[in-house]
Amino acid sequence: MRITVVGTGAVGRTLGTALAALGHDVVIATRDPEATRGRPEWDGGLPPLVPMPGAADDAELVVNATAGTVSLDALRAVGDLAGKVVLDVSNPLDFSAGFPPTLAVKDTDSLAEQLQRGLPGARVVKALNTMTAGVMLEPGLVGNGDTTVFVAGDDEEAKGVVTGLLEAAGWRDVLDLGPLEAARGLEMWLPLWLRIMGALGTASFNLKIVR
Amino acid sequence: MRITVVGTGAVGRTLGTALAALGHDVVIATRDPEATRGRPEWDGGLPPLVPMPGAADDAELVVNATAGTVSLDALRAVGDLAGKVVLDVSNPLDFSAGFPPTLAVKDTDSLAEQLQRGLPGARVVKALNTMTAGVMLEPGLVGNGDTTVFVAGDDEEAKGVVTGLLEAAGWRDVLDLGPLEAARGLEMWLPLWLRIMGALGTASFNLKIVR
Repeated sequence: MRITVVGTGAVGRTLGTALAALGHDVVIATRDPEATRGRPEWDGGLPPLVPMPGAADDAELVVNATAGTVSLDALRAVGDLAGKVVLDVSNPLDFSAGFPPTLAVKDTDSLAEQLQRGLPGARVVKALNTMTAGVMLEPGLVGNGDTTVFVAGDDEEAKGVVTGLLEAAGWRDVLDLGPLEAARGLEMWLPLWLRIMGALGTASFNLKIVR
Repeated sequence: MRITVVGTGAVGRTLGTALAALGHDVVIATRDPEATRGRPEWDGGLPPLVPMPGAADDAELVVNATAGTVSLDALRAVGDLAGKVVLDVSNPLDFSAGFPPTLAVKDTDSLAEQLQRGLPGARVVKALNTMTAGVMLEPGLVGNGDTTVFVAGDDEEAKGVVTGLLEAAGWRDVLDLGPLEAARGLEMWLPLWLRIMGALGTASFNLKIVR
């Protein structure tokens, strides 16, 4: 699949590398490729960088790997996303008052729904925001892959594209929570996730829904 | 242990029965024992009902099994809780706008913290609010007991009392999340829990933190 990853932080780099390793045709969109290339954390093994304008024109899938508070601006900058499947892995974390962060949107709305409203015609699917980046496309790193990943979205076909991608990456328990509104619950998981990370002293964990 | 359960709904009845079965000396506090006894769901196998005033005087543990929106009033009605261990299993669900409920408190505060502030000297411990009532003290009902329960609280000794109770009930993975502030995350889990319940068509599930 032709995939444009938006976001050059740890999540974008990790997902970009993992998606390319899965055989996808990946580019990473950034406002200033030259400046990004000059960063110490950028190395030659990463997928090619492209400037944001038009970066999603040929994409079959756009991955939002930016910080939640800047996601809508970033996604608007990569061009018209009408008809595109947008996989939103971000979280609306607000660090302005320090750690732990609060949620910039919650309970009666979600970041994923804000993106859907702000990007007319895009087909937003929420997934993977519930775990650390390294596990997102390498589920075997925790519990031999015996954990759960969720999907939520209003477009069944788009959810099918994301589910197929997840299964190809090794996920065996992909739980469809229904409409994009379910992203409220997925994003409100983060405060508990952060507490668990603090208690365990590691981000290398995931939840399994046992039934 | 002498335990006063506050709340006569499904959670209070289930916990009262399970605590008595574990060998504890249990009473269930209600505003009007006569009226409660007359309800169709009340049967002779349940622990004795006592009127609220003074119901916690002899208790070593008080269990808050009321609806979150009325919990503080109910706990105040059972007497002075200074020095008492208060196990809060409730959730601040607001059904006033229908289903799914919203959260009456969240993100920068929690119901458990409100109870702690409103009950001077009480030793509030949050636990068990993350699952359906039937599993709370019968963890073996889901995945042969191979799931996770959390505790949070500011009083280490009180957390030890609750942890001991949970372990005696069969819990093998009791994860201490630290101070009562962690109840924010535990309570914000509910919206996701409700979505999962909807997707699975059952409340008989629990999360396991795999690491």
